[in-house]
Formats: sequence, C-alpha cells, structure tokens
Amino acid sequence: MVMEVLRAANARQAAGGDVLHLEIGQPSTPAPKGVIAAAAHALAADRLAYTDALGLPALREGIARWYQDRHGVVISPHRVVVTTGSSGAFLLAFLAAFDPGDRVALAAPGYPAYRNILKTAGLVPIELPTGPETRFQPTPALLDGLLARGGGPIRGLIVASPSNPTGTMLDPAAMAALGDWCRRDGVWLISDEIYHGIEYGTVPAATALAIDGGEGAITVNSFSKYFSMTGWRLGWAVVPERLVRSVECLAQNLYISPPTLSQHAAAVAFDCVEELEGHVARYRRNRDILLDLLPSAGFGKLAPADGAFFIYADISDRTDDSQAFCTRLLNETGVALTPGVDFDPLRGHHTVRISFAGAEAEMVEAARRLKAWRA
Amino acid sequence: MVMEVLRAANARQAAGGDVLHLEIGQPSTPAPKGVIAAAAHALAADRLAYTDALGLPALREGIARWYQDRHGVVISPHRVVVTTGSSGAFLLAFLAAFDPGDRVALAAPGYPAYRNILKTAGLVPIELPTGPETRFQPTPALLDGLLARGGGPIRGLIVASPSNPTGTMLDPAAMAALGDWCRRDGVWLISDEIYHGIEYGTVPAATALAIDGGEGAITVNSFSKYFSMTGWRLGWAVVPERLVRSVECLAQNLYISPPTLSQHAAAVAFDCVEELEGHVARYRRNRDILLDLLPSAGFGKLAPADGAFFIYADISDRTDDSQAFCTRLLNETGVALTPGVDFDPLRGHHTVRISFAGAEAEMVEAARRLKAWRA
Repeated sequence: MVMEVLRAANARQAAGGDVLHLEIGQPSTPAPKGVIAAAAHALAADRLAYTDALGLPALREGIARWYQDRHGVVISPHRVVVTTGSSGAFLLAFLAAFDPGDRVALAAPGYPAYRNILKTAGLVPIELPTGPETRFQPTPALLDGLLARGGGPIRGLIVASPSNPTGTMLDPAAMAALGDWCRRDGVWLISDEIYHGIEYGTVPAATALAIDGGEGAITVNSFSKYFSMTGWRLGWAVVPERLVRSVECLAQNLYISPPTLSQHAAAVAFDCVEELEGHVARYRRNRDILLDLLPSAGFGKLAPADGAFFIYADISDRTDDSQAFCTRLLNETGVALTPGVDFDPLRGHHTVRISFAGAEAEMVEAARRLKAWRA
Repeated sequence: MVMEVLRAANARQAAGGDVLHLEIGQPSTPAPKGVIAAAAHALAADRLAYTDALGLPALREGIARWYQDRHGVVISPHRVVVTTGSSGAFLLAFLAAFDPGDRVALAAPGYPAYRNILKTAGLVPIELPTGPETRFQPTPALLDGLLARGGGPIRGLIVASPSNPTGTMLDPAAMAALGDWCRRDGVWLISDEIYHGIEYGTVPAATALAIDGGEGAITVNSFSKYFSMTGWRLGWAVVPERLVRSVECLAQNLYISPPTLSQHAAAVAFDCVEELEGHVARYRRNRDILLDLLPSAGFGKLAPADGAFFIYADISDRTDDSQAFCTRLLNETGVALTPGVDFDPLRGHHTVRISFAGAEAEMVEAARRLKAWRA
C-alpha cells in the first residue's frame, strides 16, 4: 500500500499537481558528504570485486566499535554480518535461526515486509495486536496471552524500536523484560533497530545486544535511516557466534556479497555524526510542528512518536476506510499519507501513518491543508 | 568449496606464498571506464534514494534494447526486472513461478547456489546427471528418462549456457528442443544466461527469449561477468507479463530496490562493448593457452569450453578425491583450482574446474607448474 500511495502521489505530481509527500518512508537527504567522498575515492581506486560474504573486515570492525561508542556494548566484529539492506539481514537471520513451519510472533501494527519475508522463509507469522496501552509494543503479558490462546509454541519474537509505523520505543527495562521472557522458553529475540539514532526522548533506544551480550538475539540495523543511505542497500545483523557460519553459507548462496562500493563508503559513515545529527534535529522540528498542529486539524489520537519519523494517528472518528480516506485526501489537497491497512490488515482501516522525513515548510503547509480540508 | 579454496589460497598468499588464482569465478578487471564515469556523475548529482522495485526505467529500457541489438528479439521493458545480482533474480523468479514443494530439475555438474536458492524457496532440486555425451547439458531424452524413473512431475528446468563449471553451451536448436519439451508439460524454463557474451564459437549462445517470445521462460542475466561488474551486485530477469506484478511485490518485500548507484552506472554499460570485447579476447587467448598446454600437464579429458572462463577437467585417472588433489596442488605448486565436488556432489570427486579469468602470464606459468608437478 505504501508503494501504491507513492505511485498515486507520483502520478499526480507527473500530471502537474503538487504533492506534499507525508507518505514517504525514507530520508529526504543524500548520504553524508564524508560517505560520498569515500565512495568517490573507492570508485577511482578499487576494482570493486566481490567481498567476503560477511562484508569487508574494516566495516565489520567499524560497526562493532559503534556499539561500544553508542551503547557501551563490546561485541566481536566476527559476529557482525554486513547485508544487502536490512531486508537481506532479516532473510538470512530467519533462515539461519528457524526451521520451516516455526511460528514467529510480531506486533501489529508493524512493518509489512516482516510477514512476507517470514513466509518466504517458510515460517508462520503470528500477529500480536497491540495498542496505545502498551505503546504498540509486545509485552510479556501479551505474549503469555498469545500462548494461552493455544496454537503451539513460538520460536521467535520480532520487536522494532523505534517502530515503523508507530514511532514508539522500548526502554531498556521493557527490552530486558522481553529478553527474559524469550530466554525462558528459548525463543529468538529478533530486534529491528534500523531507526536507532532517530530518537526524541532522553532515554536512548535499547539494543538487544545489551541483554546477555545478545546471546539469544539477532540484532538488525541499516545504513538507510539514521545514516541516510537508502539506495546504497546496506544493512547489518549481529548474531551469536553459533549462527555466524550458517549465516555465512546462506549469504554466499543468496547474495554472494553486499554491494562493494557501498561497503567502502559506509566504513566512514560513523565519522559523519555531526551532519547526521543535523537531520535528526530537523526531524525533531518537523515532529514538534505536527504534534502541535495535527490535533486542531482533526488528528487528535496520536501514538507517542518516540523515534523514527512517523506519527501513527487513529482516525476512527473520521472514517472506517483509511484507504478511501487517503485517496480522497490526496485528490483534494495534495497531501499524501499512508493508510494503516498496510501495517495492520485487521485494524488499520481506521489509522494513517504520517511521515515527517521531509522539509519543515512541507509540514507547516500540510498541517494547514489538513485543517482547511476538515473545516 | 569454491569459497574454502579461495580462503586457503588467500591464507597462503597472506603468509607470503605466491598463488596463481585459477580457482576464481569472477573477472580480474574493474567495470568499464564509461560505467565508472557514469557512477562518478551519479554520485555527485543524485540523491541515491530507493528506486522502483523493478529498477530504473532507463536501465530496463537499455536491457530490452540489448536483446534487440544482440539477439534480434523484441521485448517490452516492462518485462525486465532489475535485481540485486542474478542471485536476487533467481530467488524472485523461483518464488513467483513455483509453489512450495515443487520439483525443479537442473544439470549436475552445475552452479551450487541453484540448489541452495531452490531450497530457500521451499522447492526440491532434482539433479540430472549429465556428461560429455550431451556436452553436460540437459536434453529432452534425459528429461524423459528422469520422469520415467518416477518421483512425480517437474515444474521447472534450470539451464545454464554457457555453463558454470563446464563452459558448454546450448545452440539455438538445443535450446528450442528444451523449450518445446517444457511447453508440452507446462514446465517453466529457467535460463541462466549470465555468461552470455563470453563465448568462443561462431554460433552465439541462444536466449530463451527467442522461444515463443519467452512466454514459458524466465531469463536471468547479470552485469557481473561480461560487463565485469561483480561487486556492483546488479542482475536482471526477463519474465512473462503475467509474472511481473508478483515479482514486483516480492522484490518490494525482499529487496526494496537494487543498488541505485549501480543502476545509474549500468545504464551505460551497453555502450562499453569495445572495452568488454577486449576482455573476451584475453579470455580467448588464455583458453587457447590452457587447451594447448593442459593435456601435456596431465589434464587430457576436458569439457569443450564453448564459453564462460572455465575448463572442466576429468581427472579420474589421477585421483578419486578432487578436494585432496586441489589441496596438495595448492600447497606444492601455488596453483589454485576448484574441486568438482562443489558442482557435482556425487561425481565431482574426480573433476576440477580451471578458471582462465586471470592474466595471460598466469596461465602460462600455471601450465608450466602443473606439468612440472606431474613429472
């Protein structure tokens, strides 16, 4: 659906209409200047052949250092698997950790590709409906409830903090509680941390690597969001030592290696924090604008938006068909939002996702149009 | 095994030993100059965001034109799916065309990742032992024999021409015969054409798109081999119209989009034929050197080597353990070859793959050492 909205918005734009892209799920900025310079250098100097399936050693070391610098967590670079986007990391992780037919729990609303990647790997996604009372995150109580309803054990739990589409986060205590619950039953904790660094609170997002050194967890991250490198198609996973060899074999067969130029360039991304924090500051201003103006524009029931660049709005007082709502909104105002059905097939008919990855002026103008449209 | 040989060879090199890399499966050259210039331009000018999941329109059009220019086959660019390497094309094709549990036939010896990608997609690889009498290629008679042995129908047939590891090709008549056989039973013909363009005969390798407009075929190709762009991770598939939409949905979920910079750069690869033909001329000289010198070095039973940059040698008169043979050879001479077990688990214990992607002087020196080693 995200893609369909994008297509409709682009078609409108191509036909000469103006569009405010609040449906978009990626940064509006290019890679940091240092990354682009490193890419230019590698382009001139390197043959750009295949790399090790697990990635360039320097990049794996840089990623390991990043955990030490940001989270005070020491991990061996050998456990770092560089992948073709976080998409590649999820597929490799699922194939390495699970057996066909295994049940894997995940929150609804959630990122729709999880379900589809799980199915590709022969696994059974088990949706866990979540709401504002748990900040749209799984909890041990929800998981106990899931098991009590029968259907058999689960072998994995996917969490996303900050979450797409809700922007909510797990604090260290909430992450630790989920980690404990998983460890009790030998359930893999799959922690999607791709929006780490894009955060608006005072307590930083927790990493699953802080729990038991990540022994029961697969931690996934990406250069696409905080590092603003979507089209470079580079992500990573940190897996326990016992999974490294099977992930490596799978990676050799399914991907050969991640894009070489992107790897050389990304190795300097960790030195570009100043530029990247500038993006986060802009997201924060955009978020403040929308949180201020949306209620008077008829969007009063908003998820907390602790991180990422999304606000998830409950619009059940305005429609029970979010798709029709978004289509009408786009046609009549040029504001593109994403209907919630993409993230929550059952309950998303009364929600929308509002992205604030764009420019500040777009946020102000979008809020003005939303208010005028409602009046 | 290829990867293990590579590792052992690299370890030897790191320890100060010299290695002649005749185990390698990739060009020793960088991308063409024009491609590198286009990449530098895109790096400076483009935001490098996600693209359409199916790829940049200009690149899809360029690929469609390539079929017209090289094969006189007209296809709609809409049927072209740009992928993350040919690896990505195979996974998408298998998931779109088949249902879990389907049986898919493929020649042994063959590229080992086929088997593993098939298994990832929940499919059952059915190996078809082939030998010199059919140029290591499947034939309708071999397929009839396979079905006669029972086990149920097959839903797909993978062919590779030129083949890795044997280098043998299907001429247009052989390809057409396989196409007819597949059409009769509604079997998908999956045609791996990634070594197209690296050919040494007078009859060009046939494309499956020439059969019925490719209606019953999935044709896979790559920028890695002829176009000398391995680390750029870019390939493509051409699928019938009826598969485009499901491939697109799968691609959105599994890959989002192929690497953006690589796509911009590859769009000019078709204009770099002069430089690329220079590489093919070098491969041809290397091939001639080895075909001339190998017999006197104890490698007398060689597959035809119609294309690609491999010679597949039957060494059953020298060993029944190709892995031990290759290890001893590497240790005692520095010549790295790939044991056949990687390509044919059952019969590869008496074969090796010899790559001639390297430099001319390396071929001469390798042949000299092989001869001296035998003496």
